[in-house]
Amino acid sequence: MLRRISRCLASAPCYVNPRAVEAEYAVRGLIPARADEIKADLAADRGTYPFKSLVYCNIGNPQSLGQMPLTFPRQVMALVDAPFLLEDEAIVARLPADAVARARGYLAEIGTGTGAYTESYGYRFARAAVAAHINERDHGACPAATVEDICLTDGASSGVKLFLQLLVGGARDAVMIPIPQYPLYTAQIALLGGTKAPYYLREAEGWGMRAADLQAAYERCVAESGATPRVLVVINPGNPTGNVLERGVMEDVVRFCHAHGLLLLADEVYQENVYDARRAFVSFREVVLGMGAPYSAETMLVSLHSTSKGVIGECGRRGGYFCMTNVPGALREQVVKLCSINLCANVNGQVMTALMCSPPREGDASHAAYRREYDGIFASMKERAALLARELATVRGFSCQAVEGAMYAFPQITLPARYGARNEELNAKEGRRLALDARWALELLESSGVVVVPGSGFGQEPGTLHFRTTILPPLAQMERMVRAIREFQDRVYEQYA
Amino acid sequence: MLRRISRCLASAPCYVNPRAVEAEYAVRGLIPARADEIKADLAADRGTYPFKSLVYCNIGNPQSLGQMPLTFPRQVMALVDAPFLLEDEAIVARLPADAVARARGYLAEIGTGTGAYTESYGYRFARAAVAAHINERDHGACPAATVEDICLTDGASSGVKLFLQLLVGGARDAVMIPIPQYPLYTAQIALLGGTKAPYYLREAEGWGMRAADLQAAYERCVAESGATPRVLVVINPGNPTGNVLERGVMEDVVRFCHAHGLLLLADEVYQENVYDARRAFVSFREVVLGMGAPYSAETMLVSLHSTSKGVIGECGRRGGYFCMTNVPGALREQVVKLCSINLCANVNGQVMTALMCSPPREGDASHAAYRREYDGIFASMKERAALLARELATVRGFSCQAVEGAMYAFPQITLPARYGARNEELNAKEGRRLALDARWALELLESSGVVVVPGSGFGQEPGTLHFRTTILPPLAQMERMVRAIREFQDRVYEQYA
Repeated sequence: MLRRISRCLASAPCYVNPRAVEAEYAVRGLIPARADEIKADLAADRGTYPFKSLVYCNIGNPQSLGQMPLTFPRQVMALVDAPFLLEDEAIVARLPADAVARARGYLAEIGTGTGAYTESYGYRFARAAVAAHINERDHGACPAATVEDICLTDGASSGVKLFLQLLVGGARDAVMIPIPQYPLYTAQIALLGGTKAPYYLREAEGWGMRAADLQAAYERCVAESGATPRVLVVINPGNPTGNVLERGVMEDVVRFCHAHGLLLLADEVYQENVYDARRAFVSFREVVLGMGAPYSAETMLVSLHSTSKGVIGECGRRGGYFCMTNVPGALREQVVKLCSINLCANVNGQVMTALMCSPPREGDASHAAYRREYDGIFASMKERAALLARELATVRGFSCQAVEGAMYAFPQITLPARYGARNEELNAKEGRRLALDARWALELLESSGVVVVPGSGFGQEPGTLHFRTTILPPLAQMERMVRAIREFQDRVYEQYA
Repeated sequence: MLRRISRCLASAPCYVNPRAVEAEYAVRGLIPARADEIKADLAADRGTYPFKSLVYCNIGNPQSLGQMPLTFPRQVMALVDAPFLLEDEAIVARLPADAVARARGYLAEIGTGTGAYTESYGYRFARAAVAAHINERDHGACPAATVEDICLTDGASSGVKLFLQLLVGGARDAVMIPIPQYPLYTAQIALLGGTKAPYYLREAEGWGMRAADLQAAYERCVAESGATPRVLVVINPGNPTGNVLERGVMEDVVRFCHAHGLLLLADEVYQENVYDARRAFVSFREVVLGMGAPYSAETMLVSLHSTSKGVIGECGRRGGYFCMTNVPGALREQVVKLCSINLCANVNGQVMTALMCSPPREGDASHAAYRREYDGIFASMKERAALLARELATVRGFSCQAVEGAMYAFPQITLPARYGARNEELNAKEGRRLALDARWALELLESSGVVVVPGSGFGQEPGTLHFRTTILPPLAQMERMVRAIREFQDRVYEQYA
């Protein structure tokens, strides 16, 4: 009886904010959800699948695929969480001197209570480490970033949410986003009831940006929706596109933002992930400050970074920061207030962020080991990025831009017309509206155990089809993945061409 | 020149979402901000203040006031973050066997990558620990909570935000909140553009609730705003009121929610903080499930808890969870989706939440030490709660309800009429609209260094004045605080009565 009521309840209609219903997040959407079902089936020896395990290529989560954490940050973090370990000579003797000294230094800054809420913006010492790192990275760009410009966040996502919340009050406020984009942006815009003003990246030009496209997107938005763009989002290196922007284009972007009074939200979480020797990461902060007046003193810029990506790959820490450049006082006041409502970013992520920004230096006890670990991970990522792009480009019906940076390839796929027609028939029969690339990704999963995200989850030029795969599976898994995709695509062509 | 431009920019007008401007959070608002300025002055030997240090009573942040963390959770947390310590016999030998075993157990569950994103709802082993704890706490209330009902969050705040976001899409959706309330609620409602439907707690009845007041508040909301209430928030034990609800009243609340199809959002973060021997914490989950049909199977309940309060006091970890009871499938689908957009709660907070819910048991190596630490902190909180309420009740013009639970006293203050008139004159002169109790709290701060939060930041019956102080300062500081308040209030009466 009780079970019957519960069952009724499970399907009971109930009110949900329509903006929440509208929000979508494909990275953990339909395909990964089906993958988790299959994983549970495999673990319980249920069902019949033509494979024994899954290859997760849907999410940039390196440590879930066997990437080892860097040792030094973990040593310091453990000591900061358990300061009493530092009082035990026997334990201290087993740890590198610089890890011990670093932990003691952080603890002296924190004072009593490593479990207390911090200041709303985060530990001052950690923000100082971030500011110093930024100033070094940006070759002394002037004026220098200070602790007042830095706020520590739970991953980069919470910085994104904070600024969109501050600048989007409803449909009258628009956000310019790249297409394809990381779906956090469209999801947040939907939750806020804001307007999307998409600008398309040029696939044929290595997913490059053009200022003229920005202008056209701006005008289209104003003409079609009447909304005012408030923010321009740029993801560099690109997610899901894997491209790295050049300084000239970045300067065009800054001029565009300046001309329209837009806040430039620079998602730079992949700043350490540049593999192509012909490319280098340049921060938007360095570009803005290097352009001289009026841009250097007036273009509003918020730069985001995270401990989740790069080489450190500490996704679960939810560490990160944003850095504000030319953000006016009236907006900063609101930033402080929203941060104070959120209380503070988690302390473990704050410590990890400080460590990411101040690794062991030459002469430190841990320096050699740290470099060895870091360089090993980076070299392996670089190798996989090149291999993946090269291999995928040779699959029937695929074209794949170079993976210059970030953690993803985003190949374009063409499919036989009959495969498309069949999807429509299946959708009619199943009573759903699966996008063609979602059908493709679902059937790839069911037949091979490879988990990718359909391009429709990121947005793409109408009429084109893509998927995103990470470069993160270890080499052996990656080879299996490429083989599976190749065989699946060959079968699709044999059956439907 | 550059500095001049920057100065212009600092005061430049810029667009901000008016909903964000409207949101307020007094716990870290005007008074604490002024306190931070004073603190900086004192550190730099600037200014002249009639005190040498501040007493922070504005925020429930125990470890910032010298409360020591419990050792066992910190040991396990450090080992989980730095698993390589477990491979070193010399280190393992220095740690209690149950901490080592617990860390090994958690690591076996986590598998590779303690730095990876977890499932959207959090580690399964941690959710299992939470579910087991809830089922024990609720005396086996049926049906038992399962891992599917539990989601780990960054503190309780992120659970609050998630459900308000799901149920409030604009002014047509209302949230019933107690007055006084914890200002996270009003801030989030403002950010979402929702409607507040306040119900007043009865101060003269020990801040009790009455079902008739709920009904009146509901009807007033519908009649005045046309909005539909979607959620009822109850904070038990109360913040800022320090009261503990009795089962009979809780049953009335459940009947009310059931009758109106409201989701009951039970903020139970102070569930371990009950000091009054005549009171006991009963969870809303136990009440709902104990009421029988139709309530036990139909009343939608979301219960929130946190690692920040209780005795553990690990605020900076941002650990917590929510437990869903009778939440329909359509809503659960959206919960999963929003959690997946947020990726996951921070892993350190997840581990801390598991540890809070499964402390060492009798027979474990750490059991005696853990109990000693726990009982010591609890006894001291209990002593301070009683002392504070007793002392404040004897201050001129004060009345103070018993602090039955939570971490706060919320005394009512009456002030001479001329003090009120003077505030209006000062406001006119200063060009601001400081509430009378904010003026009082500001002048208390400036004259004594004691930081409290004015009642207007929490809401109060029109015409009444209050302030909130925590019970957390160590005894010596608390005595100074009470003395300072008494002397200040005496001066106010001497000068303006």
